[in-house]
Amino acid sequence: MSSELYPLYYPDSISVIGVSPREDNFATIIFKNLLNAKAEGLLKADVYPVNPLYEECLDYKCLKEVPGTDLMIISVPSNLVWQYLKEGDRKGTKTAIVISGGFTEAGGEKLLRENLKIRVLGPNTIGIVNTFNGLNTLFLPEKKPAKDGRLLASLPGLKRGKVAIITQSGGVSVSILDELLSNGIGISSLTCLGNSEDITISDTLEFLSYDENTEAVAMYIEGIRDGRKFMRVASELTKKKKAFALLAGVTQVGKRATMSHTASIMSDYQTYSSALKQSGIVQVQNLRELIDVIKTYELNGTPRSERAVVLTNSGGAGVLAADNLAKLGVEVPPLTDLLIKLKETGKVPKIASLANPVDVSASGNDESMLEVYRSLSEKGFSNFIVISTHYPPGITDKLPEALKRVSDSFRNFNIAVELGNTEYSEHLRKTFWEIGIPAFNSPEEASFAMAYLIRASKAQPTWHYSVRKEPVLGFKGLIINPESSDFLKEFGFRIPTWGWIDQSDLKALPYPVVLKVYREDLIHKTEQGAVRAGVSNAQEALAAVEELKRKFPDGRIYYQQMVKGYEIRLGFVRDDSFGAVASIGLGGILTELYRITSNYVCPVSVEEAIAMLRETKIYDLLSGYRGKKVFNPENLAESVSELSEWVYDKQNIKELEVNPLIVNENGPYAVDIRMSFE
Amino acid sequence: MSSELYPLYYPDSISVIGVSPREDNFATIIFKNLLNAKAEGLLKADVYPVNPLYEECLDYKCLKEVPGTDLMIISVPSNLVWQYLKEGDRKGTKTAIVISGGFTEAGGEKLLRENLKIRVLGPNTIGIVNTFNGLNTLFLPEKKPAKDGRLLASLPGLKRGKVAIITQSGGVSVSILDELLSNGIGISSLTCLGNSEDITISDTLEFLSYDENTEAVAMYIEGIRDGRKFMRVASELTKKKKAFALLAGVTQVGKRATMSHTASIMSDYQTYSSALKQSGIVQVQNLRELIDVIKTYELNGTPRSERAVVLTNSGGAGVLAADNLAKLGVEVPPLTDLLIKLKETGKVPKIASLANPVDVSASGNDESMLEVYRSLSEKGFSNFIVISTHYPPGITDKLPEALKRVSDSFRNFNIAVELGNTEYSEHLRKTFWEIGIPAFNSPEEASFAMAYLIRASKAQPTWHYSVRKEPVLGFKGLIINPESSDFLKEFGFRIPTWGWIDQSDLKALPYPVVLKVYREDLIHKTEQGAVRAGVSNAQEALAAVEELKRKFPDGRIYYQQMVKGYEIRLGFVRDDSFGAVASIGLGGILTELYRITSNYVCPVSVEEAIAMLRETKIYDLLSGYRGKKVFNPENLAESVSELSEWVYDKQNIKELEVNPLIVNENGPYAVDIRMSFE
Repeated sequence: MSSELYPLYYPDSISVIGVSPREDNFATIIFKNLLNAKAEGLLKADVYPVNPLYEECLDYKCLKEVPGTDLMIISVPSNLVWQYLKEGDRKGTKTAIVISGGFTEAGGEKLLRENLKIRVLGPNTIGIVNTFNGLNTLFLPEKKPAKDGRLLASLPGLKRGKVAIITQSGGVSVSILDELLSNGIGISSLTCLGNSEDITISDTLEFLSYDENTEAVAMYIEGIRDGRKFMRVASELTKKKKAFALLAGVTQVGKRATMSHTASIMSDYQTYSSALKQSGIVQVQNLRELIDVIKTYELNGTPRSERAVVLTNSGGAGVLAADNLAKLGVEVPPLTDLLIKLKETGKVPKIASLANPVDVSASGNDESMLEVYRSLSEKGFSNFIVISTHYPPGITDKLPEALKRVSDSFRNFNIAVELGNTEYSEHLRKTFWEIGIPAFNSPEEASFAMAYLIRASKAQPTWHYSVRKEPVLGFKGLIINPESSDFLKEFGFRIPTWGWIDQSDLKALPYPVVLKVYREDLIHKTEQGAVRAGVSNAQEALAAVEELKRKFPDGRIYYQQMVKGYEIRLGFVRDDSFGAVASIGLGGILTELYRITSNYVCPVSVEEAIAMLRETKIYDLLSGYRGKKVFNPENLAESVSELSEWVYDKQNIKELEVNPLIVNENGPYAVDIRMSFE
Repeated sequence: MSSELYPLYYPDSISVIGVSPREDNFATIIFKNLLNAKAEGLLKADVYPVNPLYEECLDYKCLKEVPGTDLMIISVPSNLVWQYLKEGDRKGTKTAIVISGGFTEAGGEKLLRENLKIRVLGPNTIGIVNTFNGLNTLFLPEKKPAKDGRLLASLPGLKRGKVAIITQSGGVSVSILDELLSNGIGISSLTCLGNSEDITISDTLEFLSYDENTEAVAMYIEGIRDGRKFMRVASELTKKKKAFALLAGVTQVGKRATMSHTASIMSDYQTYSSALKQSGIVQVQNLRELIDVIKTYELNGTPRSERAVVLTNSGGAGVLAADNLAKLGVEVPPLTDLLIKLKETGKVPKIASLANPVDVSASGNDESMLEVYRSLSEKGFSNFIVISTHYPPGITDKLPEALKRVSDSFRNFNIAVELGNTEYSEHLRKTFWEIGIPAFNSPEEASFAMAYLIRASKAQPTWHYSVRKEPVLGFKGLIINPESSDFLKEFGFRIPTWGWIDQSDLKALPYPVVLKVYREDLIHKTEQGAVRAGVSNAQEALAAVEELKRKFPDGRIYYQQMVKGYEIRLGFVRDDSFGAVASIGLGGILTELYRITSNYVCPVSVEEAIAMLRETKIYDLLSGYRGKKVFNPENLAESVSELSEWVYDKQNIKELEVNPLIVNENGPYAVDIRMSFE
């Protein structure tokens, strides 16, 4: 592969800018760590210390000038970074990691003032760890002294693993690393994005999609700046690798100030969440879950099956595990009939409960747990949550290995739960970890980890790039005139019969009709009193027209044939990050009061449009939830999809809203349209 | 106080039935533990071993017969329990703990075959721990051998605390105990209910509400059998003590099979959840949270304020904590202006972020954290989540004590977060625990614990017993005839003008009207085609009447004046546990497809009825969410409340549904009613 970021992760030569004789200097620590990695034979790259002020550092001669290398690591005062970066760029250095902070994150200026060829990670980052070649820019102490003088491990030693971590927070990076390594779980690489002035999460994903040492990616995301690239790159990555993400702070980030109705009910969080789903990434809800799925994936991979067994000797904990599996949509099938023979042979206690959870009860021992486990494995079950509360005498520390032996011959997916924090609890959990079975101390944690990995086993990107160039409209500014909706016919929408009143014979109108006033500033006609609905004959029409004329002397009145059906609101807004976002909801109070809407990143595929209709239950309504079918929801989804491709391509569209879009058995009618162009 | 359960928790004399020379015999272990407690001076009660088969046990002479004591503890084979219980009852023994299992929980018979005077806990329970008098029926090993021969602590020693634990699972009981004691947190008592054949969770709560050693109660609930008593007792308890509960498995328990519309959309879980809320109990969502709130309450009590500060040196972890506080409704106010001076004096790093979370950044040290903490304490903030990630060199193990000193002078409410599992992480967490500050390793856990305790500080019971005896109706069976709704007027509902068509002049009807057919079996008139809406004149009425007559020759047709407004569905069902449950939802698809309903246990107070209207947003609709006020929601709430008091008292009502209840500016119109009586 060739990627601009390859030299960032796999450099053949590295310069470290800012080394000094001081041992607690970050650059010096990084330089020293790199030398150690070289001494261990891990790192093959040449490493050069750079500082014009000093002759040498750690017995190495300091370079006065920045050499041309694959990677330069910069840790100097913020006001000096730019000149070093430019110098490196000029010398042909391909990539840089800027450790230094003090830029926009601290209320200062951006680092990058002009375009350089060099690709830059940061500033304000702790950089990169690549366990496969010894590249490691962490500069944090490995041991720290306690008050009583003991020197305690503060950061565990690195280890290779299958999962790459990407975060937008140094602290979260190190915490994840600590949690993983403390359980003996390695990583392939860690990337801390810092301020992301140049290299974004999307760039990193693009590189990792080709990185042969990375099987899966886990992300901590505070915001995505280049959403269009993200969708493309993430959707490519998840075709071959697994991806998990925790979204943080998105509710406060990037709130768009717009008076548009669509924007006002579109939550950024929902868009981010949809973007993950659309690109095949499994979203978790908190940091603990993110760490748990990484651990579990590393040891178990993804499950082969979508159903799970909870095997326990504690009824209550079993209920909690099963409840939470079910909440996340995992099938927890009844098993009684499969196991009844075990009871007859006396291998499990008479008082055991053989449903699912299988509860061998406090009278159960290692053997009863094992017998159930083996029996269900033979019957094709492969996902197990094993809760072996150790308080009853029958459960010992021989259980983990015995389970593992059975599991190995069936290639099962196991998560153990051992509650409590006594020595024995910790001992049992440790024993499970040591033989490669993740062991948590919460039934809910185990359930969530299993459920997310089952999701990951099925997750596929549904988003794909696809644009529609036609039709080309010459609109500018705000467009609300009734003629403007005509182009929607090309996408399969219908337009209610309409005409200007001043050109029509009132007696010949297709009653019942709605009368509306067109005037450029009447954006919310109903609220502004510019609509008369349910006009059923010429006499009523005449009265209504005269009233509207009096109220809006400078407006132009038109009629629209009344259409009955389900009122839907279909909207699109320009999104700074993702290009365009589509929103579907039921009209009226359902949208406004209950916020039953679905927002997806454009272009929305037909499959995704169907998902939007399902999430809002419009799918059920149209399919006839009480019998009568209204309109094929798939056909509506196709129209929405095609329109979304068109909006996505037309970068001058700021907003497009069809509201109401009334759907009946004859199709979807675009009754009112409002568009805003640049 | 006098409570029947007093001798269960504070016995002066105890007999232990089933002791034997075997050391691993449960009764023997319990007997031995009680003797130890006596030797330590903790237990004052007289203790008698009972077994007719043996002469002595642990050098004590075995009694052949059951003596009359305050408490008997029974651990014998299941088939022998009943005779011992009867004998104890006959001898005047006041209470019993039945450890033995093998009854309904194992598919067997119930233990209690007839009414006895003796009050029984269990069967199938691990019993009771009372840390204040040494009563302890746990029979689990305190140490267990590992494979390598080491003897590991399996159950930590007991300690006194303020919180009483009640559970319906032995395993969960012991796990909670283990988690608490491992962090140095004690309990006042532990009650494991087992099968709850006699003593229920309500009985236990009633006792604990008077127990002076108990300040708060934490419950693990799988089901409530005596809901009427529960509401009364729990609402009394929470007037003076705090209460927390985790609901488990309720979605699968006690599903009522009924064809009633109300019942089919009423989830048991929602009812249980409302019951907790109504009785002032704070519901948590998983076992970890239950344990966390107990720990945090024990050390902090409840917060004095409803707003929180997140103080951190890790931006990402701070965002996660703040996000989750906000999700649970905790105010996280901006602070920038309050702290800007600290930056000027150089006491916090220049690059620190002074919003909320306050992020002193990785360059921050103990002093910067302390300065912010002190400064905000002085400004009146009292709830702090302190995330002191230890990886940066500036954070040391002196921080906890320094924080504690400041905190003590302000009586702050603190939760510390220390991520990771390295030696230093564990050391820091341990240091926090030792000085009385709870320390978790997840920002989300800390946020949830704080949020639940803020809820607890405000929680008050809204439920109160109040019944309405009038009117007394003589109905039996299914009632759907239009006359029957007349009594609703007494509760403030209006009835649309109506009349029998065969007694009316078609020309004189109050058009527009709806025509409906009454026949005993037409329960779902609309679906059965027995309704003609929007009939606007005599001509249309004649045609509709003839059509309806043809279709339902044996039905009787009546008209109803058409009422426009918001369609609401108000229902009540008889509930085996809680007596009666009220349900409110918007009519049509909102109820059926989106399930926007609220279910509360009856009698619903006015305050609760308002809460139901708020949860379903009917309150917003009636208050005029887009300007025009429809009807005073408080008035509707009063009617609902009074009707709920009446339904609660009328135990022969199986179901009562007003659907639709149409509300417009003239009031709430009971358009259709369906009632089912025993």
